[in-house]
Amino acid sequence: MRFILNSPLDMHLHLRDGGMLKNVAKFSAKEFAGALIMPNLLPPITDTQSLLSYKKRILKAVTGEKFTPCMCLFFKESYTADFLEKAKPHITAIKLYPSGVTTNSSGGVEQIDVKKLSPIFEAMSALDIPLCVHGETNGFVMDREKEFGAIYEQLAVSFPKLTIIMEHITTKASAELLKRHENLYATITLHHLLITLDDVAGGLLNPHLFCKPIAKRYEDREALLELALNGDKKAMFGSDSAPHPVSKKECCGCAAGIFSAPIALSALAELFEKHNKLTNLQAFVSNNARDIYKLIPIEKNVTLEKEEWTVPAKFGDVVPMFAGQPLKWQVKCVS
Amino acid sequence: MRFILNSPLDMHLHLRDGGMLKNVAKFSAKEFAGALIMPNLLPPITDTQSLLSYKKRILKAVTGEKFTPCMCLFFKESYTADFLEKAKPHITAIKLYPSGVTTNSSGGVEQIDVKKLSPIFEAMSALDIPLCVHGETNGFVMDREKEFGAIYEQLAVSFPKLTIIMEHITTKASAELLKRHENLYATITLHHLLITLDDVAGGLLNPHLFCKPIAKRYEDREALLELALNGDKKAMFGSDSAPHPVSKKECCGCAAGIFSAPIALSALAELFEKHNKLTNLQAFVSNNARDIYKLIPIEKNVTLEKEEWTVPAKFGDVVPMFAGQPLKWQVKCVS
Repeated sequence: MRFILNSPLDMHLHLRDGGMLKNVAKFSAKEFAGALIMPNLLPPITDTQSLLSYKKRILKAVTGEKFTPCMCLFFKESYTADFLEKAKPHITAIKLYPSGVTTNSSGGVEQIDVKKLSPIFEAMSALDIPLCVHGETNGFVMDREKEFGAIYEQLAVSFPKLTIIMEHITTKASAELLKRHENLYATITLHHLLITLDDVAGGLLNPHLFCKPIAKRYEDREALLELALNGDKKAMFGSDSAPHPVSKKECCGCAAGIFSAPIALSALAELFEKHNKLTNLQAFVSNNARDIYKLIPIEKNVTLEKEEWTVPAKFGDVVPMFAGQPLKWQVKCVS
Repeated sequence: MRFILNSPLDMHLHLRDGGMLKNVAKFSAKEFAGALIMPNLLPPITDTQSLLSYKKRILKAVTGEKFTPCMCLFFKESYTADFLEKAKPHITAIKLYPSGVTTNSSGGVEQIDVKKLSPIFEAMSALDIPLCVHGETNGFVMDREKEFGAIYEQLAVSFPKLTIIMEHITTKASAELLKRHENLYATITLHHLLITLDDVAGGLLNPHLFCKPIAKRYEDREALLELALNGDKKAMFGSDSAPHPVSKKECCGCAAGIFSAPIALSALAELFEKHNKLTNLQAFVSNNARDIYKLIPIEKNVTLEKEEWTVPAKFGDVVPMFAGQPLKWQVKCVS
């Protein structure tokens, strides 16, 4: 049993930098035609020069692969219409982080005052630059995303022509909000389609499934599954694959992030097949993103076959999702 | 500034066995007059002979200290009235674990059928043996304790003369349930008075604050604080101090349990003082337990002084709560 995905895209990917970039980028580049690269480096990517230089380092790390890194700026309150206009040819989106809500987000926006920031959002609307948002408040860990809903609503209503992407949604409330506003879209990770808080902290504590936003309840997972499995046009795949060395995971003070890039397509195929929805996987991992971002990806056919394999315990010093476990599908050929 | 606690009691304590027992028992024995020792060893303590032999090992580990280990049997569906009558002189309570809900609980009760188990509960009522309960279902991690409420209610109503102790309560719902039935009592840990899920998984993931039941929401913590700080007669201190070697905490698949024994009285003094409730600490850490269990503890005066100290990073191979952090009060003298 086999099928072909045409130009799969990962619309939320952390490639890091330096040695980690060299270790992890190849896994995404091998199986995906392109990815939206998150800009939360230290320091974050807030100007075009840093962005282009980062892109160059990424392209070097994926030499020989057909892979487009779609670049993303780290939202700053100081951005001007003029700056955005000049940046536009080089970027696919701008990512807004509330300060302190996730890894390397301390340079983010302290207080998201939609009115005060409206000149930037107006300029982005006019230039047709999508706004990607890490939608969490600094509230209680299980409520953060829900609490952020009011800001999404305000953004959606105030800037009807702005394409707003609710990144890595994890709740039923977000799934419902998404449907209420035409200009809201969402990425959904692999792991939030598979796990709940029970997998992180219900039995033994599993640092390798600890991520932000944290996995939620069963009814939340159901709502995400409904969007993804049906290939809902407002939802697209974004792995949020976020590698950390094992020393930062199995320790006191474990960093948030799940490294799923090397197993993403295999695990998605298994999940979609289990629900008899394999035919919708193309929409979820590529077509919806093309429509939402108005992207024409590089042509790349990825053939998956149903043939069990065992996920390695580590890739370099990074433990992947499903480490040491079997997966039913594997990428057999890329052309 | 100083004050004296008379015969403090820890009514929920894990002392483990072997090398761990030798490492940890002394910390409780030094500062407490007695403790209720949990029976979830591997295999669990389900007969009087094992119980007495475990008691002997504990007494050996605390040689030289004024400390009474109050022993507890691990509830089995096979217990008979005759068995209980013979066990009665040696035990302080019987602890009921639903199977699989926490560390070493696989020998617990698969399905708590109150009607089917009623002969045991009737015998315990008649013999005046308190029933301690780990009150969690196998449901979603944040709902387990709340879901168990129906079983507590059924027990309380069906056996009005049975003393039922809701162990380590963590929710507002449990605090309310406690008040509704005369024969329900509760232990409250130090850590559930201090932390919420945000401290475990809201920032970086902290395996040393991972425990069962998992820490809940702010409103839950408030409800527990209200009981403890006011010295509510239905609530007593039970540390649930549960040591694991660091290799079982900072790893993939971290065991549940917080080691608080060596810092419990210091941290409680700090907490109660902060809320101007130091005068109620005697009730919370001793008098209420005496009334609930009809215990007369060994006479032991523990003097605490307000003098900052730094908690060691480890005790043997166990990382304590507040490791490396300062605490404002310390035990200065025991007589």
